[in-house]
Amino acid sequence: MRRIISVLVENKFGVLSRIAALFAARGFNIESLSVAETDDPSISRMTIVVTADERVLEQVVKQLRRLIDVIKVEDITEKEHVERELVLVKVKSSSTQRGEIIELTNIFRGKSVDVSANTITIEITGAEGKIKRFLSLLKNYGIKELIRTGKVAISRGG
Amino acid sequence: MRRIISVLVENKFGVLSRIAALFAARGFNIESLSVAETDDPSISRMTIVVTADERVLEQVVKQLRRLIDVIKVEDITEKEHVERELVLVKVKSSSTQRGEIIELTNIFRGKSVDVSANTITIEITGAEGKIKRFLSLLKNYGIKELIRTGKVAISRGG
Repeated sequence: MRRIISVLVENKFGVLSRIAALFAARGFNIESLSVAETDDPSISRMTIVVTADERVLEQVVKQLRRLIDVIKVEDITEKEHVERELVLVKVKSSSTQRGEIIELTNIFRGKSVDVSANTITIEITGAEGKIKRFLSLLKNYGIKELIRTGKVAISRGG
Repeated sequence: MRRIISVLVENKFGVLSRIAALFAARGFNIESLSVAETDDPSISRMTIVVTADERVLEQVVKQLRRLIDVIKVEDITEKEHVERELVLVKVKSSSTQRGEIIELTNIFRGKSVDVSANTITIEITGAEGKIKRFLSLLKNYGIKELIRTGKVAISRGG
């Protein structure tokens, strides 16, 4: 099952490496991972998406909690939360196709961020399903480049 | 100097761990890192933002290229590119403040994604400067939680 783990860590070098090693040692495939500073620059938050058995993952979460510089580990899969991801996608587009592609982008509340003679680059954010549907429509034009941030998640409520 | 490295890798476990170890061994502090699948699920793209001396970083780039499962490494700092990041931020908000905060959010083309009695959660995307300005305005209300994806970047043009 796909699970989302949120990890607060001290912003020190080596932390990411130790955490990645822990997942690798278990043979987990990380579907996506993102790490960046929080509002306190000395603390970073890591969001890790893995497909894993709940019980095996529980063991990993326990091990994570024991690591130096790890402040808090939360499996937020079952909690009410908002999931988002940002995707930058460069699509092949002749000048005659550009209008259609921009129309599609508007429907999905994306933004065009760059245009060249033969391509258009779009920014889109959303949960998994929306992004999947949008990308499947763009495939017909030909995707030249695609960059995803990986999912981040925040708990609902106060 | 802040540099953005884009790395294409085989989507296999252990790759992230080896790359993170390489940066850690050099004592580099990774400002942000994101890794997720491309449109080909067997290939992932990693975007790494580090503050580093250009010459030292060149050495690391060379070492990265020699790693197993690394397909392509690019320092895109000097190339024309579009940078984006997604931020989810939960702000303290009484019902009377909600209107102001939503107004600010609209000006910065953000979206409110959740509301509770005492908080509002906002999604915003953009380049560094815009996000910084938006967050500094939100600080006056009190930031309860902040999650960033880390920067991703795509080259301009075809």
